Amino acid sequence: MKARIIVTLKTGVLDPQGKAIESALKSFGIQDVGSVRQGKVFDIEVEGSDRAAAEATLKTACEKLLANTVVENYAIEIA
Amino acid sequence: MKARIIVTLKTGVLDPQGKAIESALKSFGIQDVGSVRQGKVFDIEVEGSDRAAAEATLKTACEKLLANTVVENYAIEIA
Repeated sequence: MKARIIVTLKTGVLDPQGKAIESALKSFGIQDVGSVRQGKVFDIEVEGSDRAAAEATLKTACEKLLANTVVENYAIEIA
Repeated sequence: MKARIIVTLKTGVLDPQGKAIESALKSFGIQDVGSVRQGKVFDIEVEGSDRAAAEATLKTACEKLLANTVVENYAIEIA
């Protein structure tokens, strides 16, 4: 089963990388861009066909490794 | 207008970072995970309300800065 996990910074957490991208875009002449925030995406192949089990596995993966839940949110999408 | 850009490695391009995450998950006792591939996500605020113009702006941003189109694909989602 294919799944996608998107990890983004929580609102209010500073994102210097995003700010740098925003400045870079402006220096490339792309002016219509407001704020930019960068996150991570993980495309994961989960074994088995039980959707609920896959979601539980992915939740554990996020909590233990993929996201720092102090400053990041995660979203799990199962295809 | 809010938009999300997802940049992922093209099929066939090696992803050592994804492989490392896969091994780490397995060492954490999460065994049901097959392949893992990592990508990047950009949440961008685009000025103006013209959807087509926003899409054109974001496409330029991807081609010029956000994605390396030799080895990466990008997808633009406008909310």
